[in-house]
Amino acid sequence: MMELIQANRCFDGEQRIYTFNSKSLKGQAKFGIFLPHQALMGQPCPALFYLAGLTCTEETFAIKAHAQRLAAQLGLILISPDTSPRGEQVAAGDSWDIGQGAGFYINATQAPWAEHYQMESFIADELYAVVTQSFPLQADAIGIFGHSMGGHGALTLAFKYPEKFKSVSAFAPICAPSQCPWGEKAFSNYLGVDQAEWKKHDATALVQSKGALFQEILIDQGAKDQFYSQLNPALFKQACAAAGQSLTLREHAGYDHGYYFIQTFMDDHLQFHSVQLDA
Amino acid sequence: MMELIQANRCFDGEQRIYTFNSKSLKGQAKFGIFLPHQALMGQPCPALFYLAGLTCTEETFAIKAHAQRLAAQLGLILISPDTSPRGEQVAAGDSWDIGQGAGFYINATQAPWAEHYQMESFIADELYAVVTQSFPLQADAIGIFGHSMGGHGALTLAFKYPEKFKSVSAFAPICAPSQCPWGEKAFSNYLGVDQAEWKKHDATALVQSKGALFQEILIDQGAKDQFYSQLNPALFKQACAAAGQSLTLREHAGYDHGYYFIQTFMDDHLQFHSVQLDA
Repeated sequence: MMELIQANRCFDGEQRIYTFNSKSLKGQAKFGIFLPHQALMGQPCPALFYLAGLTCTEETFAIKAHAQRLAAQLGLILISPDTSPRGEQVAAGDSWDIGQGAGFYINATQAPWAEHYQMESFIADELYAVVTQSFPLQADAIGIFGHSMGGHGALTLAFKYPEKFKSVSAFAPICAPSQCPWGEKAFSNYLGVDQAEWKKHDATALVQSKGALFQEILIDQGAKDQFYSQLNPALFKQACAAAGQSLTLREHAGYDHGYYFIQTFMDDHLQFHSVQLDA
Repeated sequence: MMELIQANRCFDGEQRIYTFNSKSLKGQAKFGIFLPHQALMGQPCPALFYLAGLTCTEETFAIKAHAQRLAAQLGLILISPDTSPRGEQVAAGDSWDIGQGAGFYINATQAPWAEHYQMESFIADELYAVVTQSFPLQADAIGIFGHSMGGHGALTLAFKYPEKFKSVSAFAPICAPSQCPWGEKAFSNYLGVDQAEWKKHDATALVQSKGALFQEILIDQGAKDQFYSQLNPALFKQACAAAGQSLTLREHAGYDHGYYFIQTFMDDHLQFHSVQLDA
């Protein structure tokens, strides 16, 4: 049973937060959802999952990404899950880039993480089912996007479940987690030392193995991103080119890694998805 | 000497936070400022002071109000001061509606507050001088707006300093602080028991005593505002009508007191000020 824990009128729609007892995460899970006026009236609407980055929660997107205004105009539902399992019973990490707030959108296979850290199943199966059953989502018009760790999540879940996600974009995604410190730390903890396993959860490796699956992918990247060395957009670009996967990768002078960058290009992403989902 | 403590590229402009040693507050004071591209190029721009509500800081507006996109288009500078003096040496209150985070934009006359709580002088004199000297503000095109306690601050400072603020608007302002629990607590602490003194800092009383000073005032109010009983928009409307002060007071069904309400109507306020400041 879902429980509504917050609801705020916003641009003639509603920004809400729900919690429910998640089987995959074995505990309470929260997610945010923006329902445009059309959805409140019961009209089927295209929808986007937004996956947030390290340290973020289900509220980050709703407060900081400035997406509701245009989503209301376009009639888009926006779903923003939390970034990991939470709670006292859930293993915590030794720092902000592992453990709670840092689920990396994969299913952990290693102790102590495997017990609760099943974020891939949570997003792509459980939450996907919950929202499509509970709200008027247009089933063939669901896209996914995200930021940083959540950009990695969006790209990898899109390539793993192209039948579920029709469009994909990202802000400053971790494009090749097998080849950067954040990803190496998360993957060795959650998946163990076998790097063949890592490649199943690495956007660059997935494009190489699966080939072109989307009409187009949009990525925005700040040129002054303080975490640029973790992100490797050039490797993903190279892999897309080799696979024939159309990619628009824009690098923006002066912009950094944060939400002031994201809000600047949010409208472009919503327009991009709206066109792709309508096609 | 101002010190830049944060700068983020945003909509081709910059969202910044500065700190400086304030004479009025006797301590370090922070403020946020959004400089649109035009201002970064040195071009004189109209500007708005935004005064935030109880518990907020200089960052609240920049993160939650979603104003930068249209401000960038309109070429508006946005200045968002902190809501009170801060620090260990500054008197703290017994709860969130008094003391730090609750300066009420007045000059306190009573101990222990008078030593640092001089927010009226800080905003209208000191910070006003700092920003007009340091950034390319168009001197005859400066407006003021705010939310809740900051809506009270915007309305009262506009009526006290009409030569400094050419336009004024507010979201869910405390319209008659002399007649509501928040205002009674703040004014009796900061100003003492003499209610004649309170009237000098009460928007409704100021319209009555000063008469019509602005071409128009815009106020947006949520009908589901959880603090409605503290706000008294009807008293302000009545005073404006009696004084011949033109007022657009809009009540919006379903909206509450928070920033999801504010972001919904932010564009209307920026457009309103842009027109008034250009006149």
